[in-house]
Amino acid sequence: MGCKNCCSICLQCLFGYETNVMLVINNKGVGALFRLIQFMIIAYVAVYVCWIQRAYQDTDSVISSVSTKVKGNILTNTSIEGVHVWDVPEYVIPPQGEKSFFVLTNVIPTPGQTQSKCPEIPSEVTKCESDSDCIEGHTEVHGNGVQTGHCVQYSDTIKTCEVHAWCPLENDTIIPKPALLGAAEHFTVLIKNNIQYPKFNFRKRNLLHHINSTYLKNCTFDRKTDPHCPIFRLGHMVTEAGEDFSVMALKGGIIGILIDWNCDLEFPERFCIPKYSFSRLDNKNPENNVAPGYNFRFAKYYKNNKSIETRTLIKAFGIRFDVIVFGMAGKFNIVPTIVNLGAALACLSLVTAICDWVMLTCMKDRDQYAKRKFIHLNQNGDSVLLFSMETTSYGTP
Amino acid sequence: MGCKNCCSICLQCLFGYETNVMLVINNKGVGALFRLIQFMIIAYVAVYVCWIQRAYQDTDSVISSVSTKVKGNILTNTSIEGVHVWDVPEYVIPPQGEKSFFVLTNVIPTPGQTQSKCPEIPSEVTKCESDSDCIEGHTEVHGNGVQTGHCVQYSDTIKTCEVHAWCPLENDTIIPKPALLGAAEHFTVLIKNNIQYPKFNFRKRNLLHHINSTYLKNCTFDRKTDPHCPIFRLGHMVTEAGEDFSVMALKGGIIGILIDWNCDLEFPERFCIPKYSFSRLDNKNPENNVAPGYNFRFAKYYKNNKSIETRTLIKAFGIRFDVIVFGMAGKFNIVPTIVNLGAALACLSLVTAICDWVMLTCMKDRDQYAKRKFIHLNQNGDSVLLFSMETTSYGTP
Amino acid sequence: MGCKNCCSICLQCLFGYETNVMLVINNKGVGALFRLIQFMIIAYVAVYVCWIQRAYQDTDSVISSVSTKVKGNILTNTSIEGVHVWDVPEYVIPPQGEKSFFVLTNVIPTPGQTQSKCPEIPSEVTKCESDSDCIEGHTEVHGNGVQTGHCVQYSDTIKTCEVHAWCPLENDTIIPKPALLGAAEHFTVLIKNNIQYPKFNFRKRNLLHHINSTYLKNCTFDRKTDPHCPIFRLGHMVTEAGEDFSVMALKGGIIGILIDWNCDLEFPERFCIPKYSFSRLDNKNPENNVAPGYNFRFAKYYKNNKSIETRTLIKAFGIRFDVIVFGMAGKFNIVPTIVNLGAALACLSLVTAICDWVMLTCMKDRDQYAKRKFIHLNQNGDSVLLFSMETTSYGTP
Repeated sequence: MGCKNCCSICLQCLFGYETNVMLVINNKGVGALFRLIQFMIIAYVAVYVCWIQRAYQDTDSVISSVSTKVKGNILTNTSIEGVHVWDVPEYVIPPQGEKSFFVLTNVIPTPGQTQSKCPEIPSEVTKCESDSDCIEGHTEVHGNGVQTGHCVQYSDTIKTCEVHAWCPLENDTIIPKPALLGAAEHFTVLIKNNIQYPKFNFRKRNLLHHINSTYLKNCTFDRKTDPHCPIFRLGHMVTEAGEDFSVMALKGGIIGILIDWNCDLEFPERFCIPKYSFSRLDNKNPENNVAPGYNFRFAKYYKNNKSIETRTLIKAFGIRFDVIVFGMAGKFNIVPTIVNLGAALACLSLVTAICDWVMLTCMKDRDQYAKRKFIHLNQNGDSVLLFSMETTSYGTP
Repeated sequence: MGCKNCCSICLQCLFGYETNVMLVINNKGVGALFRLIQFMIIAYVAVYVCWIQRAYQDTDSVISSVSTKVKGNILTNTSIEGVHVWDVPEYVIPPQGEKSFFVLTNVIPTPGQTQSKCPEIPSEVTKCESDSDCIEGHTEVHGNGVQTGHCVQYSDTIKTCEVHAWCPLENDTIIPKPALLGAAEHFTVLIKNNIQYPKFNFRKRNLLHHINSTYLKNCTFDRKTDPHCPIFRLGHMVTEAGEDFSVMALKGGIIGILIDWNCDLEFPERFCIPKYSFSRLDNKNPENNVAPGYNFRFAKYYKNNKSIETRTLIKAFGIRFDVIVFGMAGKFNIVPTIVNLGAALACLSLVTAICDWVMLTCMKDRDQYAKRKFIHLNQNGDSVLLFSMETTSYGTP
Repeated sequence: MGCKNCCSICLQCLFGYETNVMLVINNKGVGALFRLIQFMIIAYVAVYVCWIQRAYQDTDSVISSVSTKVKGNILTNTSIEGVHVWDVPEYVIPPQGEKSFFVLTNVIPTPGQTQSKCPEIPSEVTKCESDSDCIEGHTEVHGNGVQTGHCVQYSDTIKTCEVHAWCPLENDTIIPKPALLGAAEHFTVLIKNNIQYPKFNFRKRNLLHHINSTYLKNCTFDRKTDPHCPIFRLGHMVTEAGEDFSVMALKGGIIGILIDWNCDLEFPERFCIPKYSFSRLDNKNPENNVAPGYNFRFAKYYKNNKSIETRTLIKAFGIRFDVIVFGMAGKFNIVPTIVNLGAALACLSLVTAICDWVMLTCMKDRDQYAKRKFIHLNQNGDSVLLFSMETTSYGTP
């Protein structure tokens, strides 16, 4: 009989079809519970997983290229420099128009610096009484040069340590107020952004198809009237970020121009459009901050008549605009679909477990159900336990 | 008996093993269908999920660092500047060699600009008849300065509004043709790229192990003969991107150098090699475009004999090369493996459902199958429905 | 009866509850194996998937903005330039303080260059005997200009081809040793980093809440004492990257400042803190390398008394610091939870398959088990095979 069984198993493997024997219970309570949980799981899969989370999709991150171009001119009239017109090559740094660009809004110029010796700007650590208070070769962390070891007159009443430095030293204690180039809020910037999702071989530009040259020459971005115009007014962006341009122009800051390219590539290409938003990225909270705002120093170098190198040091305050492009594209792919479908199916098996538990513990007829559901077989195998026999002999008269 | 049952359940939990009771049907049709779908799912998992999609892998995105170095000299001979040799510090901007670098190909220089007043370049909005046509303090969007309110002679026949500006103004209506530095196509650029996948603690460079210094000194990238040489001829890259260098050099543009580091880290490290490709990133379509090409203005500042600041404004046209590094590395991880395996197993349970449906609706003996498969129990539990009894009593004579 | 069956199926769908009929075997061996494997899978899910891999979370990649500010002054005393103080605008390039900044450590200056003709620097390819060895208009790949076609005296004994170039040519064969600005290791850099995870609407700065201005003014980063101070000493970073600053300063290199923002957003926001690490990114191995180290050339342009443009060419060696921000945030999401739970459940079904196999092949009473587990039905459907009848008639006396 072992052989017989053995042969039969082989045959089964090739031709036989195995299916579970099911116990069907006509109990409205458990049946309704069963259908309810089943329905909930299927609804979850259909609505949440497929529709909202789009879990049947494979995703790819955006690859992006940005170029920017600022436009605008400002006339300033100061006692030091007189009338001066600022154009793009002067106030946009670096001039190339990459994805991060800086617009000058306030300036502390120090013209005519040469390599020489001069007294330090007075501060707690630089004031001195005699040469013994100054150390030759010493460099103060917040100082402007390397000390010579001499204590010299800074003004009629104050003596400070002398330093080797680019003299005269910059005095940046007083920041021009209002900001020298506060009118920069009227400047506009054209942002060209080209993205691709290499996995899906998808490319797009933020200059959308329906936009023509005439429109581009006159539009400026407005969330309501011109949401697709890639030309932005600086003041508008700062306002949308919740800041006041005239305040921010004083000490500078960083504004993020966020371009969100989240796209569902199941839909036609024309529905994949960029969403713009703006937010301030640096910390304006003066509590836990050093060097609030955003500034840096650069210099223009000249040679004077005697061929000695002089420079104009410029402490530049301004707003750095960082164009940050992000997004994910999704497109149908069999792997995540199978994974999510399989997972949902597996969870359906939980339903049976829950209903079985309800049936076998909470129902009035739980003993009857247990008898029918479980066929007991003891360790000896060939002899069925009395109690089990009873259970399994349900078919016999 | 309730207690007996109860005890038995407890014992079961500890020592008992529950397994489904199966109905085996020797029906070649359903059996074959069952095996076929089973085989398809297993084949899908083995071939597609494991082999093609490598879904058993955990993935990580590339982190990259790039440095670039351009080489080459050009001699130009123009009526304004005479003989001039252009070397790297002059035509590569910025000079640092970061992942985005700009190579000058065409130039409109405006030497000798100083802060003063001069008539605007004639255009529809700048032409005037009298002072009343010009507004003091007004700044034209596409103008070059801030209007003084006077209407002055631009030429013998034309009058335009006077502006405060860096004068003389740049006249960029005529672009040199052919491009001044059209020979830049023969320049080469060395790209050093260092990547890492932090999750897998994997690092690699695009200077592969088998490449030695001698080879690097003489090679240039060629898809067939030198696919691993990190030195690229500018003209070759532009051609591979499907563009004509001499045309692109006129007005500039942006070329993406895409380095694809997709790697299967199951294989030895030497199989993880970068793949280079090139494509044009800016919009050359003149239809929906403003400021086609790629250009920017920068200035060199001088002081003349009288210490007045003058500058040479340069409108620089050229090609910006953006090195874009992307890629995903995959390595075996138990979580995605279990997820995919589990999902496939769950889908196997669908097979039984399909075959059951076929068996119970399409087969000749569907009633017989149903009788054997389903054991019916009515709501009262203790009495088996007549029809069900029939079904379940198959073993009795 | 077909109709009866049909009606019954309909009723079942609405009110019936189907559950598997189970065979319970009181075999301690198989039972224990069953529980063991079940326990292992549940433990894997609980410990590894949920706790370690946090697979129940949805993830998002970091979006980051960085600004940097270097501080420090150096005094150098060379025979050519005399005493010279280097401050930030001179040695940090570009001056803006973006996420990649370069600190000058060594310099080869070539002052007084003008557009003219001069003999090439001697090398194997530039040495010549007569004019016939030089080709007019030819540009050597590693040369400094465009050949005029003349062979001229470079020194008393050596003749080289004459070139159109910025003359005098730079001679970069001898690199200053020790590095001119080797003391740059004492410079400090303040790194401000602002991140966001847009999917979770989470923003944070590396200036943590508990850090106040007083602390920031005096601290420098130290892994043990000040792990959250965002001010880094250049020398400290290079040392942590496993390099010697004085060696690296000679020829330059690239140091990566890696900021790891991996966060579990299930925990309060204060536990999401950046981890800093440093590593050298360029190839210092001289074997498969060209142009080891990191350098570039830039120029300062002047006009001399006769209005002729001259420039000071500077070959700048130095360390480029790339701030690389990476990280993933995770937060509970139902989709990955269901996927992982479902997958684990599906794997639990494998347990039954394994135990069934053990039971049906390895156990003494395997025939008995098989008889009870499988109910055989042949292709004719209505007649049960003799052997199967035996198997299924277990309930009859």
